[in-house]
Amino acid sequence: MAHRSPSLGSWSNRGLTPLESTVSVDVNYDELLERALKLARKGTGFVEPNPRVGALVIKDGEVVGEGWHPEYRGPHAEVVALEAAGESARGADLLIPLEPCSMDGKTPACTDAIIACGIQRVLFAVPDPGPDNGGRARAILQDAGIEVQQLPASDNVTASEVMIADFATYVNGSLPWVVLKWAMSADGKVATVTGESRWISSDSSRTEVHQERARADVVMVGRATVRTDDPELTVRLAETNGHVAVRAVLDSGLHLEPTSKLVESAREVPTWVFHCAGSDAEDRKAALEALGVIVVRVAKGDGGRLDPAEALRHLRAHGLHRVLVEGGPTVHGALLSGGLADWARVYVCPLLLGGITAPGPVAGSGFPSLGDAVWLTDLHLRVVGENGSDFVVEGRIGNHRES
Amino acid sequence: MAHRSPSLGSWSNRGLTPLESTVSVDVNYDELLERALKLARKGTGFVEPNPRVGALVIKDGEVVGEGWHPEYRGPHAEVVALEAAGESARGADLLIPLEPCSMDGKTPACTDAIIACGIQRVLFAVPDPGPDNGGRARAILQDAGIEVQQLPASDNVTASEVMIADFATYVNGSLPWVVLKWAMSADGKVATVTGESRWISSDSSRTEVHQERARADVVMVGRATVRTDDPELTVRLAETNGHVAVRAVLDSGLHLEPTSKLVESAREVPTWVFHCAGSDAEDRKAALEALGVIVVRVAKGDGGRLDPAEALRHLRAHGLHRVLVEGGPTVHGALLSGGLADWARVYVCPLLLGGITAPGPVAGSGFPSLGDAVWLTDLHLRVVGENGSDFVVEGRIGNHRES
Repeated sequence: MAHRSPSLGSWSNRGLTPLESTVSVDVNYDELLERALKLARKGTGFVEPNPRVGALVIKDGEVVGEGWHPEYRGPHAEVVALEAAGESARGADLLIPLEPCSMDGKTPACTDAIIACGIQRVLFAVPDPGPDNGGRARAILQDAGIEVQQLPASDNVTASEVMIADFATYVNGSLPWVVLKWAMSADGKVATVTGESRWISSDSSRTEVHQERARADVVMVGRATVRTDDPELTVRLAETNGHVAVRAVLDSGLHLEPTSKLVESAREVPTWVFHCAGSDAEDRKAALEALGVIVVRVAKGDGGRLDPAEALRHLRAHGLHRVLVEGGPTVHGALLSGGLADWARVYVCPLLLGGITAPGPVAGSGFPSLGDAVWLTDLHLRVVGENGSDFVVEGRIGNHRES
Repeated sequence: MAHRSPSLGSWSNRGLTPLESTVSVDVNYDELLERALKLARKGTGFVEPNPRVGALVIKDGEVVGEGWHPEYRGPHAEVVALEAAGESARGADLLIPLEPCSMDGKTPACTDAIIACGIQRVLFAVPDPGPDNGGRARAILQDAGIEVQQLPASDNVTASEVMIADFATYVNGSLPWVVLKWAMSADGKVATVTGESRWISSDSSRTEVHQERARADVVMVGRATVRTDDPELTVRLAETNGHVAVRAVLDSGLHLEPTSKLVESAREVPTWVFHCAGSDAEDRKAALEALGVIVVRVAKGDGGRLDPAEALRHLRAHGLHRVLVEGGPTVHGALLSGGLADWARVYVCPLLLGGITAPGPVAGSGFPSLGDAVWLTDLHLRVVGENGSDFVVEGRIGNHRES
């Protein structure tokens, strides 16, 4: 009999070297950290691949300035908070979930701003996860006479780690950050017994998904989804900033229909197909390429099927580091059992479909026992839509990735 | 392509005769009705089979007394609110979701109390659904010189109807009020591919289920659940008031194991088995009866399988009117496709199980198209447990019961 054991905070196994905790807490810094995390979340979907960060300037126990990193290429949270505090920053504490940046990038280094403003002490929760950056800001600030302390372990410190997990993957990993998304009925079905799935989710949920697409580098599906739904996978229900996600199809046998919408629009929207079929696929490959599709052959994995890790590594090597997976069940199953999925975003819709043959969101061979199952951590629950029509459960997919 | 069409408020087709709406709204009565409904919900699980009701005494636009029906045999909401208002009730309005009761029952008639307190006007949302009671209180109160008005249609009037739907079923129906309950993973599975299901849900969720059992008249499962889980279906994690729910098993072929926990404890806890097997079941029937099990033979329904409606009618005829169905998938499927389920309570647990063969909560032949699907209305979403570990989605199963 397996017991539930969602284990949060496997972070320290993932290549980070936490600094020793020496802070003597004189204000309720954990509560303030929670406030900083709330600010940080406002950047969700806008700052990537940068980390989401919120910052507080605190003087005599009072917050005298706060801010968050609002968008990629925009000012960092530290700078926003310091500007909000103005002269009050002199002699104050700066509290942030993540060790400040110490290098000029899209914006000048935050360490410079912190020193210039006369901050007396910097409190942070998580060291910079960059392979060469952890502790660098700390050293720079300390050399400038600023006290620097890492906050002691707490649920909010763990939440800080989870919040920047995508960034840590980005700076450390050879794989992209992979989000699995599905919409299912309240009885866990993604389609009826006849395969009908349009639309289980509400208009509001679909709008959200288009927003996610607008922020992803890649939108991925399996060949079965193309055959069943013939999707476009483009952004039509949301604003974009001109950025266009690559559409990627996992298609072992390279049987993608040249008449599918994806292929027909491949000259306008980048469309990549991953396959592992052999020489019998040459004609089909040529036909797809003639239509503008990028055809990529990858190695076979266990069981002789396409190894999704290969496809993901290929995408990451081409600078594509945020993958939104829109199913179907086979692809979700392959990514999940391969330990390749980082985040799940589940729309639960208020209808019942029934049917022993109606598909669920995750197929494959599954996890045999509850002890093998994957737990979600850093859980968020939201109601979507003006009528509260759908619910979104999302969280980090834990306990699975060893590397 | 089917469009989502959750239709709320099919109430008027269900045998009620709404009184004409004549109220001229001088305060925001809809907002006050919402407040009364919130009060009413405090009685959930304690008042059944009575309806959940909250009441407000309002004077000069201010609430001067409020109350709710706290438990079966306890005072009605009207009386609690009138007592809270005290002398202020004289000349005031009384607002309630449901037309007051007009007959002495477990407590004296509320109409008497309303008249005695000098209430000037009574506002209610839904007429008494009893076959002979609708409008009776209205007439009594009007005869006593009290103005009586039914609130005009609104979302909260609809919510009032849904809130007393179980009571309406109780006083009008030949079938019990049937609640389907399941706990599933965030990918819609109630067990792993090997059948492991203990425990998908958290301790807190299981405690809630035991509380529900303590308030049910019947806890129902199918034979497959007995074979797989060998459950006790008793209340061990919650307090009871001595009331014990009948345990009912749907078991077409009457193959229930005499060594199952249910049968072994049948002398202590009432245990009914419904079957439709013929003469070949005589020996098995005698063996079960010898162990204290009540064996009930019911007619075959469509497809030659046990007709669950027959079993439910039998239970209702024996005064058992609240049935908590704890699965498995086959029983849920049969009740749902038979239009026999009234309410769904779904625990969504933060883990992923995967597996194309892992069972979902509702089997059977399913609804072929989204247009046939059953929508949940009167939706509620809650987080369960001290760590917010599970989510409960619940709602009324709509659009299915014609009678």
